Amino acid sequence: MRMPEPNAAVMARRALIVADLKRLCPAAECVIEAEDEIRAYETDGLSAYRQIPLAVVLPRTTEEVAAVMRYCHQERIPVTARGAGTSLAGGAMPTADGVVLGLMKLNAILDLDFANRTATVEAGVTNIAITQAVEHEGFFYAPDPSSQLACSIGGNVANNSGGAHCLKYGVTTNNLLGVKLVTVEGDIVEIGGKHLDAAGYDLLGLLCGSEGQLGVVTEVTVRILKAPEGARPMLLGFKSNRQAGACVDAIIASGIIPVALEFMDKPAIHAVEAFVHAGYPLDVEAVLIAEVEGNDTEIDDLLARITKIAKAHDASYLRVASNAAEAAAIWKGRKSAFGAVGRISPDYICIDGTIPTSALPETLDRIGQISRSYGLEVANIFHAGDGNLHPLILYNANAPGELEKAEQCSAEILKLCVDVGGCLSGEHGVGIEKRDLMDYQFEAHELALQKRIKAAFDPHDILNVGKVFPLEDATTTALGRAA
Amino acid sequence: MRMPEPNAAVMARRALIVADLKRLCPAAECVIEAEDEIRAYETDGLSAYRQIPLAVVLPRTTEEVAAVMRYCHQERIPVTARGAGTSLAGGAMPTADGVVLGLMKLNAILDLDFANRTATVEAGVTNIAITQAVEHEGFFYAPDPSSQLACSIGGNVANNSGGAHCLKYGVTTNNLLGVKLVTVEGDIVEIGGKHLDAAGYDLLGLLCGSEGQLGVVTEVTVRILKAPEGARPMLLGFKSNRQAGACVDAIIASGIIPVALEFMDKPAIHAVEAFVHAGYPLDVEAVLIAEVEGNDTEIDDLLARITKIAKAHDASYLRVASNAAEAAAIWKGRKSAFGAVGRISPDYICIDGTIPTSALPETLDRIGQISRSYGLEVANIFHAGDGNLHPLILYNANAPGELEKAEQCSAEILKLCVDVGGCLSGEHGVGIEKRDLMDYQFEAHELALQKRIKAAFDPHDILNVGKVFPLEDATTTALGRAA
Repeated sequence: MRMPEPNAAVMARRALIVADLKRLCPAAECVIEAEDEIRAYETDGLSAYRQIPLAVVLPRTTEEVAAVMRYCHQERIPVTARGAGTSLAGGAMPTADGVVLGLMKLNAILDLDFANRTATVEAGVTNIAITQAVEHEGFFYAPDPSSQLACSIGGNVANNSGGAHCLKYGVTTNNLLGVKLVTVEGDIVEIGGKHLDAAGYDLLGLLCGSEGQLGVVTEVTVRILKAPEGARPMLLGFKSNRQAGACVDAIIASGIIPVALEFMDKPAIHAVEAFVHAGYPLDVEAVLIAEVEGNDTEIDDLLARITKIAKAHDASYLRVASNAAEAAAIWKGRKSAFGAVGRISPDYICIDGTIPTSALPETLDRIGQISRSYGLEVANIFHAGDGNLHPLILYNANAPGELEKAEQCSAEILKLCVDVGGCLSGEHGVGIEKRDLMDYQFEAHELALQKRIKAAFDPHDILNVGKVFPLEDATTTALGRAA
Repeated sequence: MRMPEPNAAVMARRALIVADLKRLCPAAECVIEAEDEIRAYETDGLSAYRQIPLAVVLPRTTEEVAAVMRYCHQERIPVTARGAGTSLAGGAMPTADGVVLGLMKLNAILDLDFANRTATVEAGVTNIAITQAVEHEGFFYAPDPSSQLACSIGGNVANNSGGAHCLKYGVTTNNLLGVKLVTVEGDIVEIGGKHLDAAGYDLLGLLCGSEGQLGVVTEVTVRILKAPEGARPMLLGFKSNRQAGACVDAIIASGIIPVALEFMDKPAIHAVEAFVHAGYPLDVEAVLIAEVEGNDTEIDDLLARITKIAKAHDASYLRVASNAAEAAAIWKGRKSAFGAVGRISPDYICIDGTIPTSALPETLDRIGQISRSYGLEVANIFHAGDGNLHPLILYNANAPGELEKAEQCSAEILKLCVDVGGCLSGEHGVGIEKRDLMDYQFEAHELALQKRIKAAFDPHDILNVGKVFPLEDATTTALGRAA
């Protein structure tokens, strides 16, 4: 879906706005207007959607962010805040009539406080950089999205990001203590901090996952945790998706909380083996990776209990990593899975629905039926322990109509997630991708309430417009409002 | 602070409203108007403040709650939702011109789902009843406020309640998965559910702790957890508050997360020993109770590590509970502490500030200085591990001016919490008690943002008015608006 190139009126508006932004952020290379440079910001991880913005501004300080927001609020200029641009749902995609506010120059680590177990960093710092900054003291930052080498902590806050190890430690909102927020009016607000809880309303909880629609986060304080003594994964193979799903359900119902419990089905297993030779069994329909943490005694005990449950669910393959190399190989397969699928299919849509874990077996059956009804192949690779599904719908964008078919298939699977008591998004956000499904999940009065909250923060509706909510009328283009 | 009794105009208004409420909730004993019966609702756990409401309505269903809300919204009648009335901050206190909406008839346990580890109950169910309903399967509900035998889960959601065991398991918001909310317009909204995360904004996080100002919760879905194999407390004594505080800090900084880490100072210890003879040492200035969980090996290991840290901080007394009776005695002292203080002082104010744990030693010193400057005694009893302080300011309400002096002392201690990087409230809420300190913690534009959020939910401002925010003008009485 490619939008028309900007016309002359847009070019004139761009020139005016660029001049103003240069006044507000006067340092070199803080405002980008050249066509070839601006193109780097036309899309994010949802690359089927592209849009050139009017301009890109890269402030260096919270104060410059505040000045830009104050200006855009006064001038009614749409703003899309952007971290590393790794959104899989189009959350960082610009509008034709707006500016991109990139936060990558805000990349300082401000405070590491081991006594209070907190780290305070600027929003553009990558997820992995937080762990790298504290690991010399034996600490780590728990949420670990697959994109953690690239994605920024500000983007994690906007999307309430998760990851493979969030089953035990929770997602971003469970590890977030405070933010510095620039409001749409350009006020700088401190929310939360190093202490437990907060007086007044829990704005921190509301902001986390609000997809950049309520304000711009410039600093983040997170909980850091002491790294466990050790961790060990095991690989479990099953003759059917349903058995694997039932085993996940039984492990969780037993009260064991593995630090990770990942699921891959046959198409994913074969793609991975052909790519990285992780040593996965090829004669099974599904594998699980279960990882537990603690000292050796605890690890032995937990893996023995998981093994017992797996055998009761007819696991046909069981292997505990006996050393660091075997553990790394097991994880290498999972971590390269998306890339591996990319090798066997020119394109895929990565879905991000969540379901109650008890609905896993039934949901996996239905996903197979739905994808077959569209004549599309699906590879299931996901965080099974907390019910966060990532089915990959394989398609060929060069075959006419296949993208649309894959999108319809994807929508049907997401509706299935809602039908079984789950929801549209686990960790990728709604963005552009799922906005038109929001009225499948929510009643009109529920969406109206959410919009009133947006209006309380953003009365002129300039922050990350065209996302999260179903598009309302023809004057709102698919990628934002008409210029 | 007792307000004038209602006048004739109020009486007439009451008669009209009572008739309407009886039409909406027609079953017997659902509307209370008799002076002697209504008096049971004039106050909550903050008994220094009292106010007779116009009427009390006790709906039996979510639909009746919705009908009452729709009516009160249309008629602009203030509504104070009330669970068990155990608020320590005046959060459930009525206004003279409003109705109390009591939720105690909504007391059904609706769904226990061990496969998904969730329990769904009506809002009037007590906190302890959730654990009682699931313990036969080896599960429990983690947050455990001291009032857990009486307090309702709806009130826990409104106040984001904590408890002694929340250091490991988190407070209400960390264990809450979904609610059924009646909006002020009388719409019924499902927020969250059994699945991870939610699409759209995180209204669940926002509602939790919003003190009944954004809507009325009628059903609650919480996470239930598998009970640990075992738990064991130990008692540690120190020659100074500062040493005990530094030891708490060192335990947390070591990465150990005890399931509870409680602090009591000398006045509290002596009051407790005189009351329940828990076997606490009397020749120390402070004791800590540290409890850890797991199997016997894990427990031995963790208590040995805590012992080593305590010795490094010059602990003068160390005792590990060697059996269930000794464990019960250690906890009996802590759990009866507030009652014990009630025996040595006719009245006390229980403060509820939080601080970064690293500020504990300094803050305890300053609390001692502040209370001495007012000539008041203070007993410190609190959840030290997560920095949630509960200093008790002892005073005599019958001595002229002592309540005011105690309130000033309390306000000064709460400001101290803010000054050291903490906040006004840990788990009791702001309510009436701390509303006038909110502008010490928050800037004007921060409070304005919070008020815009309230307006998004409650445009006519009828829900639990006169709480949380500083009172604005003379037409707003201390206990609500003028009738």
